[in-house]
Amino acid sequence: MTTSYITQVLPRVLIVKRPAAMRVLGDSFVASTKFEIVKAFESPLPLPEFLADQSHPVSAIIAPVHVPVTADLIRLLPNLRLVVTTSTGVDHVDLVECRRRDISVANAGSSYSEDVADTAVGLLIDVFRRISAANRFVKQRLWPLKGDYPLGSKLGRKRIGIVGLGSIGSMVATRLEAFGCQISYSSRNRKPSVPYHYYTDVQEMAANSDALIICCELTDKTLHLINRDVFAALGKQGVIVNVARGAIVDEDELVRCLREGEIGGAGLDVFEDEPNVPKELFELDNVVLSPHCAYTSLEGLEQLGNVFGLEY
Amino acid sequence: MTTSYITQVLPRVLIVKRPAAMRVLGDSFVASTKFEIVKAFESPLPLPEFLADQSHPVSAIIAPVHVPVTADLIRLLPNLRLVVTTSTGVDHVDLVECRRRDISVANAGSSYSEDVADTAVGLLIDVFRRISAANRFVKQRLWPLKGDYPLGSKLGRKRIGIVGLGSIGSMVATRLEAFGCQISYSSRNRKPSVPYHYYTDVQEMAANSDALIICCELTDKTLHLINRDVFAALGKQGVIVNVARGAIVDEDELVRCLREGEIGGAGLDVFEDEPNVPKELFELDNVVLSPHCAYTSLEGLEQLGNVFGLEY
Repeated sequence: MTTSYITQVLPRVLIVKRPAAMRVLGDSFVASTKFEIVKAFESPLPLPEFLADQSHPVSAIIAPVHVPVTADLIRLLPNLRLVVTTSTGVDHVDLVECRRRDISVANAGSSYSEDVADTAVGLLIDVFRRISAANRFVKQRLWPLKGDYPLGSKLGRKRIGIVGLGSIGSMVATRLEAFGCQISYSSRNRKPSVPYHYYTDVQEMAANSDALIICCELTDKTLHLINRDVFAALGKQGVIVNVARGAIVDEDELVRCLREGEIGGAGLDVFEDEPNVPKELFELDNVVLSPHCAYTSLEGLEQLGNVFGLEY
Repeated sequence: MTTSYITQVLPRVLIVKRPAAMRVLGDSFVASTKFEIVKAFESPLPLPEFLADQSHPVSAIIAPVHVPVTADLIRLLPNLRLVVTTSTGVDHVDLVECRRRDISVANAGSSYSEDVADTAVGLLIDVFRRISAANRFVKQRLWPLKGDYPLGSKLGRKRIGIVGLGSIGSMVATRLEAFGCQISYSSRNRKPSVPYHYYTDVQEMAANSDALIICCELTDKTLHLINRDVFAALGKQGVIVNVARGAIVDEDELVRCLREGEIGGAGLDVFEDEPNVPKELFELDNVVLSPHCAYTSLEGLEQLGNVFGLEY
């Protein structure tokens, strides 16, 4: 690093709210010698005043899921060239407005994929083998009183339909193959290099699957893609795992199907109105819930810094 | 099947207590045209009187884990030629007495291996990614109140030491390789065809592992094999998963290490004094407990019938 490099004006990167990663990794997460980090969250000013106050314009913004990059926000940033999400999904970014303004949008790449895939498999095993429910059974001291615990279901030879075979979906498939599961997938397009059975239609895949694992993006086309008809096709023993976005599933229908036994169980990391989870799910032993935490781990956050090119 | 076959005296197989499988599969589990099944559990008589009452002697016994085949029981069965356990482990059978009396002992083969391996991996993911604890967090409505859930740990690149690389241990290894884990193992002998690093000494393996998965038999040599020294070598972040037998682990030491943070967490399906579980474990979020139910599933029990050669 040369002195001249330090004295030049660095590209300015806006961070609106304190990132979750800072709570774990501290200030080092947003320390950089390549960019000037503009921390709006350290100012008491409302964002429009704060930005109006800046002498140099912001050229990039780091946008976690809980900071929607709306047309209103974009209007406050006339020199914005780049939006970088800290998530895999970009559904919280107004892509139409970005396209109109010729602003590039980059996501966190596949840095979360392993962790999400691991949790998806963990949730699937948990539901089939009833692990969280077993844990509760033992911790509530029911074993000496009630004796044998109800049997779970075998993972091997289960037909698993993966909705969206991107980076995460592919990693889920690799993992579940090692358990002897039969993998199929649905996606916008058939992937020629992939050995799994391809379905154009999710409902048809559901009819031929013991479980669906939702790994696709949330878009206009996938909003409530997993609906009443898909649940009916999946059937009474069928399991849903969702590690993508809550709104890909029609949550009201999901709750109804779970309560009425029209599907067999669910492992859900994401919900339509986070952090609010339908309370009807709290009493169901065949439902395992996690608070949108599949996406990363301590080690995963450290890797994320490399994607951003921030030094820490 | 010929008529003469039916009229001949069939070998008599004793079942002392109603098998768990009967509660699921009904009488069909013990229906057979090849053997005469002697159901001691249907008689009000104490076992010695019941057996003395039988006109034909018993030549085999089916022995679930909760029916110890002791020297006393064997003495009641002068014509016993064969003990068949419904478990993989045979530690509830007096092998010395069987050897002395030239009685063969057969176990359930590898019919449970897949289910046990699946649960071992499920418990490992659960502890590393904190799934059961996350489920409790959401179901106790803490997400809207407390916000971000503490991050778990990544599975990929974790160094996993498998204690006992038999049928179950090998299946655990195959599964965890698909998650990008680094596998090593300890066992009585090095297995020449296996690509994983071999340790003769469990403590040395623990010092080089992020988690140990106990998959070995319980014998005189493995009783309390996982002791204070092994926990110390494993270290503060280390995780123990036990799907074998409780007594392979020094449970008092395990409880102490978990309470005092000397190891990082545990996933336990088996305990020294089942169904009694140390109550100190009930409050620990980094401990996932299941009531010795890893071994099978609905589908697994059906396969078990084939191993026994019973028709149903």
